[in-house]
Amino acid sequence: MVSPSSDNPAIAALLFSCIDAVGIIADLANFFAERGLNISRYEEYTDDGHFFSRLEWPLNDRWEDEAAFDKEFASMAQRYQANFDVRFMNQQQSIGLFVSRQPHALIEILNKYEANYFPNIEVSFILGNHESMRRIADRHGLPFFHVPTDGEVPAYERKQLDIVHRYKPDFIGLARYMKVLSEDFIDRAGCPIVNIHHSFLPSFVGAKPYQMAYDRGVKLIGATSHFVTAELDQGPIIEQDVARVVAGASVQDMVKMGRDVEQKVFARAMLKVLEHKAIVHKNRTIIFN
Amino acid sequence: MVSPSSDNPAIAALLFSCIDAVGIIADLANFFAERGLNISRYEEYTDDGHFFSRLEWPLNDRWEDEAAFDKEFASMAQRYQANFDVRFMNQQQSIGLFVSRQPHALIEILNKYEANYFPNIEVSFILGNHESMRRIADRHGLPFFHVPTDGEVPAYERKQLDIVHRYKPDFIGLARYMKVLSEDFIDRAGCPIVNIHHSFLPSFVGAKPYQMAYDRGVKLIGATSHFVTAELDQGPIIEQDVARVVAGASVQDMVKMGRDVEQKVFARAMLKVLEHKAIVHKNRTIIFN
Amino acid sequence: MVSPSSDNPAIAALLFSCIDAVGIIADLANFFAERGLNISRYEEYTDDGHFFSRLEWPLNDRWEDEAAFDKEFASMAQRYQANFDVRFMNQQQSIGLFVSRQPHALIEILNKYEANYFPNIEVSFILGNHESMRRIADRHGLPFFHVPTDGEVPAYERKQLDIVHRYKPDFIGLARYMKVLSEDFIDRAGCPIVNIHHSFLPSFVGAKPYQMAYDRGVKLIGATSHFVTAELDQGPIIEQDVARVVAGASVQDMVKMGRDVEQKVFARAMLKVLEHKAIVHKNRTIIFN
Amino acid sequence: MVSPSSDNPAIAALLFSCIDAVGIIADLANFFAERGLNISRYEEYTDDGHFFSRLEWPLNDRWEDEAAFDKEFASMAQRYQANFDVRFMNQQQSIGLFVSRQPHALIEILNKYEANYFPNIEVSFILGNHESMRRIADRHGLPFFHVPTDGEVPAYERKQLDIVHRYKPDFIGLARYMKVLSEDFIDRAGCPIVNIHHSFLPSFVGAKPYQMAYDRGVKLIGATSHFVTAELDQGPIIEQDVARVVAGASVQDMVKMGRDVEQKVFARAMLKVLEHKAIVHKNRTIIFN
Repeated sequence: MVSPSSDNPAIAALLFSCIDAVGIIADLANFFAERGLNISRYEEYTDDGHFFSRLEWPLNDRWEDEAAFDKEFASMAQRYQANFDVRFMNQQQSIGLFVSRQPHALIEILNKYEANYFPNIEVSFILGNHESMRRIADRHGLPFFHVPTDGEVPAYERKQLDIVHRYKPDFIGLARYMKVLSEDFIDRAGCPIVNIHHSFLPSFVGAKPYQMAYDRGVKLIGATSHFVTAELDQGPIIEQDVARVVAGASVQDMVKMGRDVEQKVFARAMLKVLEHKAIVHKNRTIIFN
Repeated sequence: MVSPSSDNPAIAALLFSCIDAVGIIADLANFFAERGLNISRYEEYTDDGHFFSRLEWPLNDRWEDEAAFDKEFASMAQRYQANFDVRFMNQQQSIGLFVSRQPHALIEILNKYEANYFPNIEVSFILGNHESMRRIADRHGLPFFHVPTDGEVPAYERKQLDIVHRYKPDFIGLARYMKVLSEDFIDRAGCPIVNIHHSFLPSFVGAKPYQMAYDRGVKLIGATSHFVTAELDQGPIIEQDVARVVAGASVQDMVKMGRDVEQKVFARAMLKVLEHKAIVHKNRTIIFN
Repeated sequence: MVSPSSDNPAIAALLFSCIDAVGIIADLANFFAERGLNISRYEEYTDDGHFFSRLEWPLNDRWEDEAAFDKEFASMAQRYQANFDVRFMNQQQSIGLFVSRQPHALIEILNKYEANYFPNIEVSFILGNHESMRRIADRHGLPFFHVPTDGEVPAYERKQLDIVHRYKPDFIGLARYMKVLSEDFIDRAGCPIVNIHHSFLPSFVGAKPYQMAYDRGVKLIGATSHFVTAELDQGPIIEQDVARVVAGASVQDMVKMGRDVEQKVFARAMLKVLEHKAIVHKNRTIIFN
Repeated sequence: MVSPSSDNPAIAALLFSCIDAVGIIADLANFFAERGLNISRYEEYTDDGHFFSRLEWPLNDRWEDEAAFDKEFASMAQRYQANFDVRFMNQQQSIGLFVSRQPHALIEILNKYEANYFPNIEVSFILGNHESMRRIADRHGLPFFHVPTDGEVPAYERKQLDIVHRYKPDFIGLARYMKVLSEDFIDRAGCPIVNIHHSFLPSFVGAKPYQMAYDRGVKLIGATSHFVTAELDQGPIIEQDVARVVAGASVQDMVKMGRDVEQKVFARAMLKVLEHKAIVHKNRTIIFN
C-alpha cells in the first residue's frame, strides 16, 4: 500500500487573469494585506493585452475551504471580470491515470508520487485498455480497471466515464494512453486532462513520431506534455524538452532515449498543474516559476 | 561608426528588497495605482526571510528622472528599510569594456550592441592591456585605450581609474580581461563590474580552466558570469551554462567550444544587469525572468 | 583586412560509404598501413544496410593533392562501389555567403572565421540582395556584391551564378538569406549549399516561424541548419538546437533569443561540413564526432 | 518476480587501447576479416599519444565464449602491448546495487532494468545499510541484504564483501549509497564500482552538495557518475549533466530537481559501462557513442 504524500504544504495559490488595467495588483494585494496575509510569492506577466498572475500565501484559518475563499473573493474578481482559481495546497488533490501497454510514463508518475515529488496528491485509480499494466498498479497498491478499447468508442468511453465519475479526480494524466479521446469524453470528464506526446510538437503529430523523426533525420528528439483538447495533439503546451541524437542511432535507440525525455517532461508538466502554476489563454499556457 | 541603440523602451524597472513582512506588495502596488500607473510585469520571491521583487511600468511624464522618482518613493522604502533601485530604460546606460588578448567576448558584446540586443546602451570605451584589440575598437568606431599591465599594480590601476572616472560607466564588463582587479580598484570604480570566467564555477578557479577540465576528464565544460568582488572568481553568479565534451576532444577543442559558451553566458549576464533584473543578496543573486 | 586562417591542419579526412559487407575496414586500413600512414581517428556506423565511415591521417608528401589520392584510391572504392570524398585540410577551402537584411548569422561566421574557428578557409565573397550589409563586408575587407532580387528569378539568379562561378566556392552558406533558391540555381551552383532556418524543423516551415511558435505556445524555440534542396526547408539536417521560452516572452523576445540559437547552430553546421564530417544518405546526414 | 531481460543482443564489443602506432586498425580489422566477421560499428580516437578503440561485430559460433576469443586474440594484443576487453553481449552481465535511505537512484535502475533499457543484465542483489529499502527490493522480487554500517568499517565491509563474493557481479552500482568505501574494499570487490554523486564534480565534493550549491548561488545544479577509486569523489567521470535553477528555488527545490538529474546521469553511466563503451585512461574515461 502506497503511503499518501505526507508533505502537506500549508500554502494557498491563486491564479488570476483578466484584461489588463491600472490598479489590479494593488486591489489584489490590498485584499490580502487587509486580512493580515503575507503574499510569499507573486508573479505577473502581461501579454496580448491580458494580465496573468499567480500568488501564494501561507494558509491560516481565515477560510475553512476554497469555497469560503471564493465567496469572499468574488466581488474582487467581478470588478475585473477576471478568471480566478484558488487552490489550498493542504487539501489533497486526486489524479487518475490512463495507460495503454507502455509502462514508463506511468511508472515515473507513481515513483515520484511515492517520493513526494508532487504536492499532497492521491493517485485514485489507474485505467488501462490492456490487462498488462495491472501488475504495476498492484505493486503500488492502487485500484486498476481494465477497459478494453476494441469495440465502439461510445461504449467503452461510457465505461471509462463511469470510473472517472466515481473517483472525481482533479486531473487525469494520460501516461502514454494511445487512444484519441472523443470530444464528448473530454467535455464530460469534468477535469483537465494532461497528455504526454512522444515528439517535439508541432512536429510529428500522430502515432509513429520516432520513425518520422528518424526518417526526417532530426538531430534532437523531443517530448511534449499538453492539455488535451478535441483536436489530436493540438492542445495548449505545458512543457517540452529534447535530447540529442548521436551518430549511428537507430529508431530503437531513439525510442529508448525518447522514453527518458517523455518521463521527465510528463512529470514536470504534472507538477506544474498540481502546483497550480498553469493558466490557459487561447491555445497557449502561461507557466509560472 | 556604431549607431547607438535606437530601441528606447519607455519603461521603468524597480528592484526592491527588504526583510519580509505582511503588506509590502500592497504598499508597493498602491504607490503606483494611486499615481495611475500600470504595473505591466511583476515578480516577487521570498527566500532566507527576505522579500525580493522587481516591477515594471510604462513611463510617462510623472517623474522627470530617476532622482525625482527616488525622492517621491523614499518614504515608502524607509517604511521597510528596503534597498531599492529604479532604472528608467529610456535613459541610456553606458558600459565600459576591459579586454586582454582574446577578442571573442568583446566581439560578442559589440555585435549584440549593434544589433540592439541590449536595451538602450552606449559602449563608452574599451580598455585593453595589449594594443592588439585596438583594431576591433576601430572597426566599431569606439574609443580604445591601451594601458599596459606589466608594471606595478597601483600605477596601472591609477591610469585605468582615470579613464573609468572620465566616462563614469553604469557597468564595466570584463570581456576576458585576464588580470585580477585589486580591492582598491573595485571600491573606486564606482559601478558594478561583471566578469566572464571560462569554467563552471566553483570548479576550476584561476587561469587554466580548460586544461584543468581536460585533466579531470569532465564531460561538460562551462562558463560563469559573475559580479566581481575582491576575492578571485568568488563573486555572486549571474549566469552559467555548459556544453558537452565529445570523445576525442583535445584541450584545444574544449577551448574552441568553450568560447561559444563564454560568449553566450557573458551576453546573457550583461543583458540581465542592463535590463535591471539582478539583485545581489549576500553572495548570491536573484535573477528575474 | 581579414587575416586568412593561419591554422593549416596537416591532416587529411576521407569520407567513405557503401553497401555494408565483410572486410571493408580491413581493406581501407590496409590501404593506409601499406603506405605507412597512421589513421589517427576513425568512426564507422552501419545504418539502413549501409556502411558510413570517416577516417583521418596526418598528411605527408605521399600525394601531391587530392586528385593524386583519388587516382590511387579509385580501385579500392570501385571494389565496393563506394562513394568517397577526400579532403586535404592543409588546402584552403573557400566559402561564399549569401545574406539579406539581417546581419547576425553573417557576423557570426565572419567572427569565427577571424578567430580561426574554422579549419583553413577563405571567405571569398558576400552576396546580398540589399545594399545594407556592405558595411559588414567592408569592415572585414571582403568583396561584397549587391544583387537585388525584386525582378524575375531567372534574371537575378543568372547574376548570382556569375559571381558564384567566378569564385568557385567549396560551399555556399545562406546566412539568413531569405529567398528560395530555384532548382536550377542549386543544380548549377556547383557546390553544396548550407542554410540556417529559424525554427526547429520540421516545425514551422516558411517565413514567420517565431510568430508561429508564439501562436502555438511552444516552450522551446529552435534553429536548424540543413543542406539546401529544391524543396523549401526539406533538405538533410546537419545540426539543430533549442532554447527555452520563459513566461512573459513576447514574439520579439523569442526573435532575440532565437538569433543566438541560429548563430550557434549555423556556425556548428558550417564547422561540420568544413571539417569534412557530414555524409548525406537519402534525406538524412551522418555527422561524425 | 522480475523477468530478466529478454533482449539478448547477439553482438560482441571489443575495447582495445595501446600506444599509438601505424597499422593498428589494419591489424585489428584483418583479424576479423580473415575470420569472415563484419565489423558493424567502429570508433577510434587518439589522445595523449594513445590509441583508443571500440568495435562491434555480430556474434556467430566462431568462439564459444569470451575466454576462447581472448586466447585467439592474445597474440594480436601482445604485438601492441595493448589492453583489451571483449564482451559478448548475449552473455548476461550481473550487477549488484548498494543503497542507503534514498530510493530514487535505485528505483530508476530497477525500472529501466524491467524495461530492458540495459542490455541483457541481471540485478543479482541489493545491499542496504538501512532496512527501509527492502520494500523496493521485495516489490521487484530481488534479494535484499541489510548490513548496518554503524560499527567498525572493517567489520561491516567484511560482511558486504561476503555478499559480493557470493554473487560475483560484473559491476557494482552505488545508488546513492552514502558511505565511503575503503581502499581495501575497492581492491577486493573484484569488479568496477560506479557511483552517482549529487553535484557537478569537481564542484561540491562531499556530503551536502545542494546546500553548498545554494550557498554559492550557482545557476545550474548537476550530477556526476564516476568509477569509484580510493579518493572520495575523485574517480574517472563517466557522465555528467545539469539542470537550471529558477528564481526563488530553495535548497529543497534543488534537491527535488537534482534527483531527476542524478537518476538520468546514473542510468546513462550504467548503460555506457554495460554496453562496454567506457575505457579508463589515467584518471579520465573515453566514452564511445
